Amino acid sequence: MTIRELYEIVLSGSHVELDSMEYVQLQGWIRTNRCSGKLGFIELNDGTYFRNAQLVYTQDLKNFKEVEKYPTGAALTVTGKFVLTPEGKQPFEIQVTEVILEGDCDRDYPLQKKRHSFEYMREIAHLRPRANTFYAVFRLRSVLSMAIHEFFQNQGFVYVHTPVITGNDAEGAGETFTVTTREDTNYEEDFFGKHASLTVSGQLHVEAFAMAFRDVYTFGPTFRAENSNTTRHASEFWMIEPEIAFADLDDDMNLIEDMIKYCIQYVLDNAPEEMKFFEKMIDKECIDRITKVMNSEFKRMTYTEAIEELKKADVKFENNKIEWGMDLQSEHERYLCEKVVNGPVFLIDYPKDIKAFYMRMNEDGKTVAACDLLVPGVGELVGGSQREERYDVLAERMKEMGMESDSLQWYMDLRRFGGCKHAGFGLGFDRMLMYLTGISNIRDVEPFPRTPRNLLY
Amino acid sequence: MTIRELYEIVLSGSHVELDSMEYVQLQGWIRTNRCSGKLGFIELNDGTYFRNAQLVYTQDLKNFKEVEKYPTGAALTVTGKFVLTPEGKQPFEIQVTEVILEGDCDRDYPLQKKRHSFEYMREIAHLRPRANTFYAVFRLRSVLSMAIHEFFQNQGFVYVHTPVITGNDAEGAGETFTVTTREDTNYEEDFFGKHASLTVSGQLHVEAFAMAFRDVYTFGPTFRAENSNTTRHASEFWMIEPEIAFADLDDDMNLIEDMIKYCIQYVLDNAPEEMKFFEKMIDKECIDRITKVMNSEFKRMTYTEAIEELKKADVKFENNKIEWGMDLQSEHERYLCEKVVNGPVFLIDYPKDIKAFYMRMNEDGKTVAACDLLVPGVGELVGGSQREERYDVLAERMKEMGMESDSLQWYMDLRRFGGCKHAGFGLGFDRMLMYLTGISNIRDVEPFPRTPRNLLY
Repeated sequence: MTIRELYEIVLSGSHVELDSMEYVQLQGWIRTNRCSGKLGFIELNDGTYFRNAQLVYTQDLKNFKEVEKYPTGAALTVTGKFVLTPEGKQPFEIQVTEVILEGDCDRDYPLQKKRHSFEYMREIAHLRPRANTFYAVFRLRSVLSMAIHEFFQNQGFVYVHTPVITGNDAEGAGETFTVTTREDTNYEEDFFGKHASLTVSGQLHVEAFAMAFRDVYTFGPTFRAENSNTTRHASEFWMIEPEIAFADLDDDMNLIEDMIKYCIQYVLDNAPEEMKFFEKMIDKECIDRITKVMNSEFKRMTYTEAIEELKKADVKFENNKIEWGMDLQSEHERYLCEKVVNGPVFLIDYPKDIKAFYMRMNEDGKTVAACDLLVPGVGELVGGSQREERYDVLAERMKEMGMESDSLQWYMDLRRFGGCKHAGFGLGFDRMLMYLTGISNIRDVEPFPRTPRNLLY
Repeated sequence: MTIRELYEIVLSGSHVELDSMEYVQLQGWIRTNRCSGKLGFIELNDGTYFRNAQLVYTQDLKNFKEVEKYPTGAALTVTGKFVLTPEGKQPFEIQVTEVILEGDCDRDYPLQKKRHSFEYMREIAHLRPRANTFYAVFRLRSVLSMAIHEFFQNQGFVYVHTPVITGNDAEGAGETFTVTTREDTNYEEDFFGKHASLTVSGQLHVEAFAMAFRDVYTFGPTFRAENSNTTRHASEFWMIEPEIAFADLDDDMNLIEDMIKYCIQYVLDNAPEEMKFFEKMIDKECIDRITKVMNSEFKRMTYTEAIEELKKADVKFENNKIEWGMDLQSEHERYLCEKVVNGPVFLIDYPKDIKAFYMRMNEDGKTVAACDLLVPGVGELVGGSQREERYDVLAERMKEMGMESDSLQWYMDLRRFGGCKHAGFGLGFDRMLMYLTGISNIRDVEPFPRTPRNLLY
């Protein structure tokens, strides 16, 4: 029996099942143990549910003297009588008849009752999933992963494992890590016979699959070797990159909107205890904020219109030099969605010079068919675009940007062999988790975060 | 409208829907186009279903002269009348009224009608998903991924993204790739301030999460820098590693058996056309073989019993020196499951010297609580074990094996802080795909395979 099952039975009020299981056995870990001398209470968590089961024990227990000393963290197998306590803080308790110590917990256990800083918790990444915040975060991470898979698979998208090790130096999204078995730079003699790096994006590879399966997505780890210590950047993070054929920017935005709404509904349905915890302890707006987004129609605004809005703004931005062609900062993005639109908004048609080579050139020759989804509280959450499907236009653009095209000839060839209009986007999975929970540091939503000069465990 | 939807409607015989959609629009790619001069037939595939839609066109088409020349591979948007053809090879055809060329296909398109070797196809990994075999393989890859997630999530397992970049040099499962931003070996000045490598297994990290969530699993890429060019080894591959707390080797084997059976049922239900294709074109035994496994009770046999069976065998093995303590080869494993058991069998209780440091020592002091699942046709498919939960025994074992324990102190500490009996296993996802399909080279089930001196795309 698990604690989740007990709560489900109690909350569903299904009394037949209750009667038939008066005595239950549980296995889990002590969160707290307090004893008055005659009567003891253990809060037990077994990993299956956010809430604990309350165990009550008395001197009738033959190992009472030991049990009262069992410390926080110890692992137990417990048998007891299941009793509803409708008047109590918990809906039920277990009146314990037997306690077996499965694993003791040494007295230097770092997770004692007092609250620890998130910084400290990062140094005990192997233990922190047992602390409430991380216990909630990492279950939510799992639930959100499943939301993503269900959303795409329900619509017939094909999941593609794009490679982590890549020979394309020019994916164009940031600094890369080298993958090698050598101690020098003689890459021709290296494992792959050439220079290899960790991928920064699966997009180029997954486009090849969209030309076979129409609707595809990747969901896997990506890497940046950028030496920036911010709360929003990690060296390793997971990304979702769907790609849809016979689709334009509008189709892309519709898909993004559907996905965000699906994910929000899914976590509210499947991790309600966790979301309530975040609302209470981390960010009192979080449920309101995402519920509002779920019920909003996502607006659309061109970059050019956005610049006009920013020029009109009677707000002092840190970067106050607003001009067409600038890259928008988070403060600008938040102003647009929070003050101008008051809800989620897609900015579209960005200047080509601040966007990637593969984005489709608009008729004006100055902007590309890109979209960034801005949401209140965060700013940019998703970036997408229609891809340049015209071989000549793409080739010209790559030349203009000084890109060496040999290693990407295969990518360009997708345009020669039955290419079609297509589009896609990237969602940073860890950022989405931060957005849902209100957790402000990416290090606190990743199981074992990797950042510059930080590789614990 | 998609071709999958058309087949689903036709196969379900739902005539109401058929009537209401006499004219349909499809978008997809030409598989073949043949024209007699007056009457033309296009086999169109749109990526949503294994089978094609047959388009019929006549001289009534205003661009008939162009359409008859459209080559294999070209992308089209087509409108036409949907007509049931119960006497035909296909259950329906589309009598085309309009054809728009979305993307032409150059005449040097490598996927012409003739069959190509798998070796050749590996060199055009960006195009091969459009060829039948790979089109079937990569959809099955997606379907099997979802089977894995559903199997574990339905039982409340928490999905953990264990890190790809690791600082543990001693995960103990093979040669590793170095991850660096330097051109020398001064790793103290490197990005992470120490030597970093690509993970060979998420197990050690996921054990920490099992001590919080009880039932957890990883599913992600793992890496081996082994310079071996075999049909069963790749440098990058995906692995599933579940870990269950308060569980022993028996629980572990039950979980493996349930998972394998679930996956088989799932692919038969969700990719029937693809499985029929493999049966017809790749391995005529494949559906029989896995159906039999699904309906078998998995047997259990100790390593020691297995050695006795091999000694008794009247078969000439390549490695014919059978003695207790030897590492079994594929030929021995296949003999045991194919000839002795005639079905899937778990070998358990292996000599400690041929197994990993973390496996639980048995009472005899000579064997460990490990299990390998052997299946007919392949040999080893899954490897698992109960983990050593006793701090002192683990420390002694690591010392005995000459393992430096500093970088794994956190792992050992899981035994000091509420450790409990636990177990887990590893399933090579790509090998499972090979097993299901009968595809004999791991390079042909991976989207962009990475092997020694081979890093295309």
